[in-house]
Amino acid sequence: VIIGIDIGGTKIQQALFTENGKRIDTLVFSTQVRQGSERAINKIIENTSLLLEKYKLKPINIASINIGAPGPVNSRTGVILQPPNLPTWRNVPLKKILEEKFNCKVNLDNDANVAALGELHFGAGKNCHSLVYITISTGVGGGIIINRKLYRGWNNVAGEVGHFTIDPSGPRCSCGQIGCLETFISGPNLVKSLKEKLKYNEDEVFEKVMGKKSEDFSAKDILDAAGRGSRLANETLEVAVKYLALGISIINYIVNPEKFILGGGVIQNEKAEKLLIQPTVEKLGEICHFKTFSTPVVKARLGKDSVIWGTYVLGKSE
Amino acid sequence: VIIGIDIGGTKIQQALFTENGKRIDTLVFSTQVRQGSERAINKIIENTSLLLEKYKLKPINIASINIGAPGPVNSRTGVILQPPNLPTWRNVPLKKILEEKFNCKVNLDNDANVAALGELHFGAGKNCHSLVYITISTGVGGGIIINRKLYRGWNNVAGEVGHFTIDPSGPRCSCGQIGCLETFISGPNLVKSLKEKLKYNEDEVFEKVMGKKSEDFSAKDILDAAGRGSRLANETLEVAVKYLALGISIINYIVNPEKFILGGGVIQNEKAEKLLIQPTVEKLGEICHFKTFSTPVVKARLGKDSVIWGTYVLGKSE
Repeated sequence: VIIGIDIGGTKIQQALFTENGKRIDTLVFSTQVRQGSERAINKIIENTSLLLEKYKLKPINIASINIGAPGPVNSRTGVILQPPNLPTWRNVPLKKILEEKFNCKVNLDNDANVAALGELHFGAGKNCHSLVYITISTGVGGGIIINRKLYRGWNNVAGEVGHFTIDPSGPRCSCGQIGCLETFISGPNLVKSLKEKLKYNEDEVFEKVMGKKSEDFSAKDILDAAGRGSRLANETLEVAVKYLALGISIINYIVNPEKFILGGGVIQNEKAEKLLIQPTVEKLGEICHFKTFSTPVVKARLGKDSVIWGTYVLGKSE
Repeated sequence: VIIGIDIGGTKIQQALFTENGKRIDTLVFSTQVRQGSERAINKIIENTSLLLEKYKLKPINIASINIGAPGPVNSRTGVILQPPNLPTWRNVPLKKILEEKFNCKVNLDNDANVAALGELHFGAGKNCHSLVYITISTGVGGGIIINRKLYRGWNNVAGEVGHFTIDPSGPRCSCGQIGCLETFISGPNLVKSLKEKLKYNEDEVFEKVMGKKSEDFSAKDILDAAGRGSRLANETLEVAVKYLALGISIINYIVNPEKFILGGGVIQNEKAEKLLIQPTVEKLGEICHFKTFSTPVVKARLGKDSVIWGTYVLGKSE
């Protein structure tokens, strides 16, 4: 069997797969970031043992444990470095811990890379030779598939599409650089941008949609309000679309994949197709050379499960 | 034998290689762009026959004719499309013409891709697993090597590093897009930028270096004047360095190659190492994440011969 683990900022999912890709069982628990990594790792070990017992398996039956974790990670050493989404986890050698505990092979990679594999084998990228997966969520990341394999680059930073400078006149990013793609399109940055607008403008629709809690809203609320005609919410999305299209066009001039697949929390929203993806495709037609941008840009098909399905393939694909 | 052809805007070089990579002979003639493609193609055919006769060879002895030509080209069909550097050449089916004439295999690709292969096998990229070659000349182009093979992408536009938007507030590029890398670093754009500055500023050093012909200067003159302390020339190069570093950092976040190799007319200048490459490496250290940009950025080792050496490998590498 293969045990897949999707470590997220909110919850940790563990799935048991047969060697031929049947997903037999899934266990989930809350990450509780504030309580640090030790509790979560103990729970991962406990749940792994639970899954084994339930199906009368032993550690020797595990072909591998495959993990998708928030970046940055070192996929060679299997260490989770210092993810902004897991601030209490620092240099956690999860590969080593689980290898010693279960005496089996452990593969670990960043969640965007693993999600790219999931979409390649089970989602919107089936039959694709190459693709670029972009996740838009709390952060922005990516995974590049070339020749149906994960392409990691020389120092493991290939596909870090959230952190290239897309506008040298842009704001400072949480990573320290200027004008990264993430500063224009991540969930928290959409919220920040709309809050900025609300300081100097009135928007009755937005206030009506949000009611009193307009101090505390999310990217989902912005999509909701935009759908109902909020001017400021629509303006916020317009800027995001402009930069997302620009980012995709840059990646296309460099990698030129067969398909772009967009995933992550912001994109999983049901309104994202109409309010983000379609306008981005139109914008690409306007801004690109010869006005013909022919690479398809589509929504991830596995939604929240891109990563967990990707864990099944991780390690197999290299 | 292998016949390699390097088609440039000024001259056309033809080399005869043995199958194991010995360069036996080279013929050169002037492209004379104004006279159109027909004269040049007849001359290519004539020189190919001359090379064969001289070494007592027949068309059947040709393993392949391999061509590097100014982009855009269609490397699948072997057609030279509409190169800005060869304005009189339009949709020239050179592969077909030479295949019919010599009844042998013909490979054709854009010169930046071919130069990348040349540097990979015989130049600054020997022993590299992956590299990105950037040529800075009349235009700006690139070639990407992954797993020691040319990476062309799904629609053949991978590595078109001159034409992604690097600054959405930048000037319009000759390609029609806004703020392409080429608009900041190509030879003609350096000249344009300095001319703009000369309209509103005096620069005694530059005028002294240039004498009376200050209306008609090239990127080489800018490097010369900068080396002798011209303020405006140095300011011009500073902007170029800023954008070249930004461009390399973007490519690094996406492709993350083992090495960047810079070539082309502007870089071949002896002052380019000190005035362009070194400052670019320093700039990269400043602007990149964690302030550690560890990918080497080096000058092409084959100079003007990157393309002709690359032709020997073209076709072999796929």
